Amino acid sequence: ITECCTVSLWLSERTVLFCRWVFVWEKGYQETDSVVSSVTTKAKGVTVTNTSTLGFRVWDVADYVIPAQEENSLFIMTNMITTINQTQGLCPELPDKTTVCKSDANCAAGSSGVHSNGIATGRCVLFNGTVKTCEVAAWCPVEDDTHVPDPAFLKAAENFTLLVKNNIWYPKFNFSKRNILPNTTTAYLKSCIYDAVTDPFCPIFRLGKIVQDAGHSFQDMAVEGGIMGIQINWDCNLDRTAALCLPRYSFRRLDTRDVDHNVSPGYNFRFAKYYSDPTGTEHRTLIKAYGIRFDIIVFGKATVLCDVIVLYCMKKRFYYREKKYKYVEDYEQGLGGEMDQ
Amino acid sequence: ITECCTVSLWLSERTVLFCRWVFVWEKGYQETDSVVSSVTTKAKGVTVTNTSTLGFRVWDVADYVIPAQEENSLFIMTNMITTINQTQGLCPELPDKTTVCKSDANCAAGSSGVHSNGIATGRCVLFNGTVKTCEVAAWCPVEDDTHVPDPAFLKAAENFTLLVKNNIWYPKFNFSKRNILPNTTTAYLKSCIYDAVTDPFCPIFRLGKIVQDAGHSFQDMAVEGGIMGIQINWDCNLDRTAALCLPRYSFRRLDTRDVDHNVSPGYNFRFAKYYSDPTGTEHRTLIKAYGIRFDIIVFGKATVLCDVIVLYCMKKRFYYREKKYKYVEDYEQGLGGEMDQ
Amino acid sequence: ITECCTVSLWLSERTVLFCRWVFVWEKGYQETDSVVSSVTTKAKGVTVTNTSTLGFRVWDVADYVIPAQEENSLFIMTNMITTINQTQGLCPELPDKTTVCKSDANCAAGSSGVHSNGIATGRCVLFNGTVKTCEVAAWCPVEDDTHVPDPAFLKAAENFTLLVKNNIWYPKFNFSKRNILPNTTTAYLKSCIYDAVTDPFCPIFRLGKIVQDAGHSFQDMAVEGGIMGIQINWDCNLDRTAALCLPRYSFRRLDTRDVDHNVSPGYNFRFAKYYSDPTGTEHRTLIKAYGIRFDIIVFGKATVLCDVIVLYCMKKRFYYREKKYKYVEDYEQGLGGEMDQ
Repeated sequence: ITECCTVSLWLSERTVLFCRWVFVWEKGYQETDSVVSSVTTKAKGVTVTNTSTLGFRVWDVADYVIPAQEENSLFIMTNMITTINQTQGLCPELPDKTTVCKSDANCAAGSSGVHSNGIATGRCVLFNGTVKTCEVAAWCPVEDDTHVPDPAFLKAAENFTLLVKNNIWYPKFNFSKRNILPNTTTAYLKSCIYDAVTDPFCPIFRLGKIVQDAGHSFQDMAVEGGIMGIQINWDCNLDRTAALCLPRYSFRRLDTRDVDHNVSPGYNFRFAKYYSDPTGTEHRTLIKAYGIRFDIIVFGKATVLCDVIVLYCMKKRFYYREKKYKYVEDYEQGLGGEMDQ
Repeated sequence: ITECCTVSLWLSERTVLFCRWVFVWEKGYQETDSVVSSVTTKAKGVTVTNTSTLGFRVWDVADYVIPAQEENSLFIMTNMITTINQTQGLCPELPDKTTVCKSDANCAAGSSGVHSNGIATGRCVLFNGTVKTCEVAAWCPVEDDTHVPDPAFLKAAENFTLLVKNNIWYPKFNFSKRNILPNTTTAYLKSCIYDAVTDPFCPIFRLGKIVQDAGHSFQDMAVEGGIMGIQINWDCNLDRTAALCLPRYSFRRLDTRDVDHNVSPGYNFRFAKYYSDPTGTEHRTLIKAYGIRFDIIVFGKATVLCDVIVLYCMKKRFYYREKKYKYVEDYEQGLGGEMDQ
Repeated sequence: ITECCTVSLWLSERTVLFCRWVFVWEKGYQETDSVVSSVTTKAKGVTVTNTSTLGFRVWDVADYVIPAQEENSLFIMTNMITTINQTQGLCPELPDKTTVCKSDANCAAGSSGVHSNGIATGRCVLFNGTVKTCEVAAWCPVEDDTHVPDPAFLKAAENFTLLVKNNIWYPKFNFSKRNILPNTTTAYLKSCIYDAVTDPFCPIFRLGKIVQDAGHSFQDMAVEGGIMGIQINWDCNLDRTAALCLPRYSFRRLDTRDVDHNVSPGYNFRFAKYYSDPTGTEHRTLIKAYGIRFDIIVFGKATVLCDVIVLYCMKKRFYYREKKYKYVEDYEQGLGGEMDQ
């Protein structure tokens, strides 16, 4: 009977302590094991367009990557509405239910609606032969973005490539690695294209394939733009050889479209290139850029001894028995005092 | 007595195991439940200014959002010091205690202080009728930022609006949602402005209101700039209906001002627009941009079964009794072996 | 014997409950204690260069920081390849094994390789007196980046300085602090330079020293560029006085070089400055910018009561005994019901 009690006591204490030990151990581990990651990207590809407004034109990286560099992100312009040679002045607004007017009485001077391109002067002027709209002080002529080019202006971006360089570091274990694996040759890296099956460790991605692997159509996405997540997962068991710590890539569209709400669907923004003519007057070319922003998201978790508890409770515990006992003993001494109370 | 022991043994083992199970379960959960979030922003608003240097001028998004796009952040220029038509050349430095000189002997050629605008030529030249300063090779004329416009140059930015689109995804539960809620109408989204009380789910924010809700004055902040945090909190209990998983917005000024230390207070940076005149000479307009950077910070936590332990230990445990027993039994089998030792 | 059982029972229950309580407590704590951090940076420094292509030229912040502002990052251009006065047109490709040709037969019209600067016209034209390459429609003349300037073009960047302003906030404890400490004087901040030993709390860093402290050579890194991590660690025990909550800076090169794989080694990107000549023709200056991106990485952990469990299990538990008992009792009541089953 006494034995029974001792057993029960010893057993329960042991497990409690083990549980407690793991707790402490895990906690310490969890808090300091923040993965430090750095990402750089480089796009490649050239295409040509031929339109009435812009004529024949070549587009290279410096033209379609905006801004030129970001920390964990890269924007590729796939479609655009260009308003060339704008100058500061007075011009009629675009016609819509708030701007169409019959007389100056319809135009409140100084007013500016949410979607206005400028500040109303209070005059009602001819927009074209038939329509009159309120005049605004603005960059003139005002942008007309009623029609988004479809197919996308730079649809050829589907074949552009993106090199993603990712370095990770686990501070606690001072373990670092990069997604360009040591056993790959430079020749391979110069020619490879990522493929989940045939080239799962090639860090060069074809833009079209990224979108396709996420279950979307690049050409659809290219028209109004969107956000793609390139996820790099580094789950590493550092008890095993570091060679088994490998990046896993997955792709996901991050901007879920919702047909019911197309308030600024997709992804676009405006920027301008400013010029100065010989007289010193400032001109600008306004570009409403639609495109795909690729966000590189790095997940990382390094496990070391926490396997003990996992395996232990998953009942494959014999493997680690020795380790466990070691800890139990450590704590048993300490416990003596407690039981004497 | 034996029974007593068994009970105690069984009970303690059970609870230990339960505790251990939760531990493992929670751990696995915590590590994989990183919320994946994507944010896009779009500012709207136009204003006009009329100054001696720049004359009458309209400012729209392409003029005051710098850079045109960022990943989780948006900078709105609210104030500025413009130095137009700079060219590479030689000119006197701004007068300060290190640059004012009586003769060339006071100017060390090739030197450049921390706050210099250029490299000293070693000559002491007239800055104006009365003051002489050391000459520098620099973009001339050098910027004079001694007086920051107050009230802010683009004070009208208070009424600009910011649309924030946020998509979240909980990988482990493959649960995704966006801050434009399904039950809101497009008409509503076209007109609404966020208000904590009347419109808590409208994703369109008036800049002035963001700052005000954080307890600061937009007009004060607009003069020297600063950083505002727009926090989006997605605490979701996925056991309940997903409709209850809603974003909560809060605002906070992230750059705490410290009157004692106004070393570069607020937030500003310099950028330039480069021009080339007919002769090919490069000119630039240097802009010291003061403004408010809006950092969108997304918090997210999804709880599912971890409620068990919470409720359990908070003594409202009966609700979950069945679940718990299930697990206990699973483990009891495995434990058999252990007790036989 | 009964006593023995009670003891064992009481003891095991108590410890289990304690363990469980900590679990819940910790869990709640860990999940809500996300540090909110904001970072702003400001570089200072001017240098001059004198080359045949660009002549004598001064470089200031607006010239070498690209883009002008980022959220947690700053890029300083240290080296560059400039291709001035490019226009859209037709010109021979750079000679390499894929572009050198003997006749038009070697040039597939419309083709564009991964490293092409444009789209092949199908003609084979003279690149120089001796070599013929395929003609491309491109921004002409095409960039020749075969030779990277060494030493780096803006090697003087080693002496530029970087002010890092970091504000942190622990939401759960509503505790905030900045890396400009309250007891430092403005005079000190105007003159100090960070040094791990003499000035560990000065937030102004000499670029050369950052790289050196990470064990690398600035001048080597400046040639092909790279990524430096500036780590700010805020481990704070908020049980103690807030004055002890201090930032610790550390530096680390984040892009590990790998001599075997120099596929786009270091860090560089391309951007262009666009001009328009009197006839309205667009020109651009293409810049391949090599440089160092400084990523500011903020770690933060605030500990409060979690010390209990740590100390407890580390056997220095007497200090907290009272607290512990308090919780134990709370739970013991609750447990009664369970045992009666």
